Amino acid sequence: MKDNLVQYIYGIADNALILGQRLGELCGHGPSLETDIAMTNISLDLLGQVRSYYQYAAKLQGGDVTEDTIAFLRLEREYKNVLLVEQPNTDFAYSITRQFLFDIYHLALLEELQNSKDEMLSAIAKKSIKEVLYHTRFSSDWIRRLGDGTEESHDRIQTAVNDLWVFTDELFHQTEADKAMVAEGIGVDVTLLKAGFYQKARTILEEATLQTPTVEYFQKGGKQGIHSEHMGYLLADLQYMQRTYPNMNW
Amino acid sequence: MKDNLVQYIYGIADNALILGQRLGELCGHGPSLETDIAMTNISLDLLGQVRSYYQYAAKLQGGDVTEDTIAFLRLEREYKNVLLVEQPNTDFAYSITRQFLFDIYHLALLEELQNSKDEMLSAIAKKSIKEVLYHTRFSSDWIRRLGDGTEESHDRIQTAVNDLWVFTDELFHQTEADKAMVAEGIGVDVTLLKAGFYQKARTILEEATLQTPTVEYFQKGGKQGIHSEHMGYLLADLQYMQRTYPNMNW
Repeated sequence: MKDNLVQYIYGIADNALILGQRLGELCGHGPSLETDIAMTNISLDLLGQVRSYYQYAAKLQGGDVTEDTIAFLRLEREYKNVLLVEQPNTDFAYSITRQFLFDIYHLALLEELQNSKDEMLSAIAKKSIKEVLYHTRFSSDWIRRLGDGTEESHDRIQTAVNDLWVFTDELFHQTEADKAMVAEGIGVDVTLLKAGFYQKARTILEEATLQTPTVEYFQKGGKQGIHSEHMGYLLADLQYMQRTYPNMNW
Repeated sequence: MKDNLVQYIYGIADNALILGQRLGELCGHGPSLETDIAMTNISLDLLGQVRSYYQYAAKLQGGDVTEDTIAFLRLEREYKNVLLVEQPNTDFAYSITRQFLFDIYHLALLEELQNSKDEMLSAIAKKSIKEVLYHTRFSSDWIRRLGDGTEESHDRIQTAVNDLWVFTDELFHQTEADKAMVAEGIGVDVTLLKAGFYQKARTILEEATLQTPTVEYFQKGGKQGIHSEHMGYLLADLQYMQRTYPNMNW
């Protein structure tokens, strides 16, 4: 039960950690000052949520485990984030599309997680949901603006949507820890979020004059710790400070 | 004297390590199979030379110092490579131009280092020079082929030459360790290689129908351990395995 709860927390929090790291890479590289600050703020929101989850997971495990060891000292296969969030910042279209697809899912997840029997998870979800509502509005607005913008912005967003679509199905896969936590009334049954996700995504893509991709083969593996090649490079950057200066404090 | 000799060895070997790492990134990404294999072989040549230098530096220092701790466990400011070799693989034009500029310098350096009073350095230079002769021929041929090729290949090589030229002057700067080793008859006086370098570079650029840039301000700092922002990311990748699995062996 405790192991499943810890793994369940990783399954939620690692998504926010890895996406937060990706967004952090953009700091100082946004297409405009306002957008740069907005993306960095989203990164900070996500990392704030991560701290709450990891502090809870550390408390559950006890011993030498801290939020820092969880964030920085696990091996690649111990990270349980979905493949979507580790995909690179190819260009702004990819960054904002990745954000958009994750936000819709994330918002639906937190809406349900508020009702968790686990008081701590319920409290984190209630606190996070206001932030994620803002994220969703921000990324959806950009999808509409770029899709319904110039020919080039339309084509670039469509390319990003087509490429990242293969990572959406994994969001709705259940791990063993998921199933165990759903049975306890603690976890969210993500399979029930799938239809709503695709409906909402399709609606916004239509408003943005974009095509909804139809793909037959989806990528998966992240939830089991089997990541894309991008993950190793991301972790090398993420972990460098703690690995180089063990037990460092600011 | 011993400290100066160790620093002198780092000043030579770190260039080969960092350039070898950069070339290693290209493995599997070359523009053609033949070129891919050639670039990877150059990388392996350089890393082989690095091992000879670092084994010698480790022996000089004794204690827990090994070729692996020197290669993988120093901090950024302790690497003494020039800024040129840490510049990224922006496209093949950049990779081959970086190689070309380094090769001309490297060959001239080794020709002199053969005459070092230090028998080990002299031996490493004699062994390495055959490899570096091949590297120089390979990169010079590509400069000619691309410079005197299509309009696009010409423009892209010219852009790379223009951008990387600012890193050439540093090759001929002397550190304190350099000066001390030159005085001992062990080190090469790199200031004496400068005129020959620019003459050889200009000759090949002319054969390639390329302009030799004229710049008034050159970049420097690597020889003192003050690196460009690319270096941190490169080291994060380079050091990841040893930092994550300390004392690992294959």
